[in-house]
Amino acid sequence: MSRGKLVYAQSGGVTAVINATASAVIRTARQNRVKVYAGHNGILGILNEDLIDTSKETLHTIRALAHTPGGAFGSCRFKLQSIEQDRARYERLIEVLAAHDIRYFLYNGGNDSADTALKIAQASKILGYPLTCVGVPKTVDNDLAVTDCSPGFGSVAKYTALSVREASLDIASMAKTSTKVFILEVMGRHAGWIAAAAGLAGEGRDAPPHLILFPERAFDEADFLHQVQATVNRIGWCVVAASEGVHYADGRFLAEAGSQDAFGHAQLGGAAPTLAGLVKEKLGMKVHWALPDYLQRSARHIASATDLAQAEAVGEAAVNYALQDKHGVIPVIERLSDRPYRWRVVPAPLARVANHEKKLPRKFIRADGYGITAAARSYLSPLIQGEAFPPFNRDGLPHIAELRRQPVAKKLSAFEG
Amino acid sequence: MSRGKLVYAQSGGVTAVINATASAVIRTARQNRVKVYAGHNGILGILNEDLIDTSKETLHTIRALAHTPGGAFGSCRFKLQSIEQDRARYERLIEVLAAHDIRYFLYNGGNDSADTALKIAQASKILGYPLTCVGVPKTVDNDLAVTDCSPGFGSVAKYTALSVREASLDIASMAKTSTKVFILEVMGRHAGWIAAAAGLAGEGRDAPPHLILFPERAFDEADFLHQVQATVNRIGWCVVAASEGVHYADGRFLAEAGSQDAFGHAQLGGAAPTLAGLVKEKLGMKVHWALPDYLQRSARHIASATDLAQAEAVGEAAVNYALQDKHGVIPVIERLSDRPYRWRVVPAPLARVANHEKKLPRKFIRADGYGITAAARSYLSPLIQGEAFPPFNRDGLPHIAELRRQPVAKKLSAFEG
Repeated sequence: MSRGKLVYAQSGGVTAVINATASAVIRTARQNRVKVYAGHNGILGILNEDLIDTSKETLHTIRALAHTPGGAFGSCRFKLQSIEQDRARYERLIEVLAAHDIRYFLYNGGNDSADTALKIAQASKILGYPLTCVGVPKTVDNDLAVTDCSPGFGSVAKYTALSVREASLDIASMAKTSTKVFILEVMGRHAGWIAAAAGLAGEGRDAPPHLILFPERAFDEADFLHQVQATVNRIGWCVVAASEGVHYADGRFLAEAGSQDAFGHAQLGGAAPTLAGLVKEKLGMKVHWALPDYLQRSARHIASATDLAQAEAVGEAAVNYALQDKHGVIPVIERLSDRPYRWRVVPAPLARVANHEKKLPRKFIRADGYGITAAARSYLSPLIQGEAFPPFNRDGLPHIAELRRQPVAKKLSAFEG
Repeated sequence: MSRGKLVYAQSGGVTAVINATASAVIRTARQNRVKVYAGHNGILGILNEDLIDTSKETLHTIRALAHTPGGAFGSCRFKLQSIEQDRARYERLIEVLAAHDIRYFLYNGGNDSADTALKIAQASKILGYPLTCVGVPKTVDNDLAVTDCSPGFGSVAKYTALSVREASLDIASMAKTSTKVFILEVMGRHAGWIAAAAGLAGEGRDAPPHLILFPERAFDEADFLHQVQATVNRIGWCVVAASEGVHYADGRFLAEAGSQDAFGHAQLGGAAPTLAGLVKEKLGMKVHWALPDYLQRSARHIASATDLAQAEAVGEAAVNYALQDKHGVIPVIERLSDRPYRWRVVPAPLARVANHEKKLPRKFIRADGYGITAAARSYLSPLIQGEAFPPFNRDGLPHIAELRRQPVAKKLSAFEG
């Protein structure tokens, strides 16, 4: 324990496998005899000295984290200002870390969280506190820069492709006298990665999904309705996968924007009912729609084994980098080949990841704008391969890790931040 | 083949396991050397002499049907009038059956389909055609009379309970700084069976779902909002499972009724966004909602093994009853004990099932109207037990039966019905 403790925290929207990363972090640190505290609700847990002592959890529980969705230690949406703007907050962070002899900081999140990790990495230098900061990648949106893919994405991609395949069989059987059009709305505010994954459900013009609506392409109402009608004329039914971020040419979202989150992102939801209303009104067809929302990113029961392995690998690598004093890095996935799919984890500078956003390449979207290309299939297909079913209890529901979440005794007074 | 052929058809909304029933029907008939034709799109396939020769499918394909969701032969929503009102249609049905030497008629569906089977049973007597008519139960709504439960329900119940459990872990981790309330809308127009199944996700006041909204109880907006606020005050977040049929005391659905289906049922959808809007507007909390729609009834990947076994058992029994000339019956599930769960299949008169609707018992709803009782748990719990994962292809998606669907050569002219 002479080399100090490690603090691990989860940030941003959670995924089906972020706890698998947590599990790998804790297990790897234990193997290296480093104690892990978890921030309760991300960076807020550090600011508020609200820490969880993971050494009080059994190895059985830590292993069970790998099949437990959600964020076991609580996540947060909280954006740090720069040290110039908010020095007191950084001083408090360092004060808490120092009070508990924490020498390693691992922040598990997406673009915004990489920014937070980078800012803390820089602040610790400025404030002269010996801290090794390492990011840990996670996001269902697959929009992290540098890394070939983001842990969390493969599982939501598998959920989405599987849902399209299953629901399409339902529509196909109902279409003769009932529902002819089905619209599935998927996550992905600005990048159509999840929408693209829907395309894995089938290949060829007549296989579902017949139409994918990407946020990268402006929505053309007349053409969309024409495509739906043509598909129904041709095969009797039509399945549409629509990104939550689908919008008109002038930028208006089909799902009218509601509130904003802490990062200033618009809160969306409701492209599918808007599209369904259009189809019903303009084409007079019976239409059903689904909006799985959080179900898609918490569906640990149908996680991708590939995604799970990568989520664990980045957790293990992050601890190793920290212990090797690789300051200001983040483990990323490097793809070595498509077929057979081979990958490895390598370190990348946090600065190259923070606040960047990886867009869906134009070459992944079919020329007509409503489907994916062979290049997209080659990229996406390996990410959904393999099943990693959780253990199920006798009651028919998946086993969930039951953490003690024992708080670390506070040493400081409350922060008035 | 001397005793004639059997026609099997699927009707109404499909389920994750209706094809498992089809698989059992075809396999059992084959064992008895009876050829099975399937009606293409339910009863319409018989009226239009649009029949599929299942003897052209391999045993491998027929076995694969057991893990394929949707209705493999096409379903329909089509209500027959009485023979007095529409004698020509019944004469046509009999003409088609006679032309193909069909002596057994199996109709796989819910309340309305049992009515269809019963009418054809009666019509065949009136018209003097020797036909043995047997119903086969199926509905995700679990509202079939006489039977202890309906094949198809256990799987949607499992999907629902599991979805609540998984998504709740997501909300719990986000609630500190982001989403505090999550609303899952489930199927069940008039009966809260699926909503009740959500209650299996947890037990006790603080376990999700914290509130269930049943169609059996009038929605009280002020009290609902009070309950949500109290739950968030107590534990920081709140998960709601709402039936699509939730309505105000005056009968108005929260999801405003849209079109009607062929049986005159209102087409609903959208209670969850209405509730979410209320929570956001009145309580000012960030809220997410999900509406899985067809995903819940096509989720064969997470089917209940109990449900699957029952779906197969009623298929096998239906063929056996038919071959025993048990006219006008339907196999139903009889529960022998809760713990251990034991059940058997017995025949019941179609007349006792047709057009009846099994309501959720009052004793299954907690006194405060927002949860389920111990009696409900004892009833529901066995139905979701056991997993029956489909085989997965190497591409990471479930294997699906690929049927040849070879049409039977027509012997008659088209029906001008």
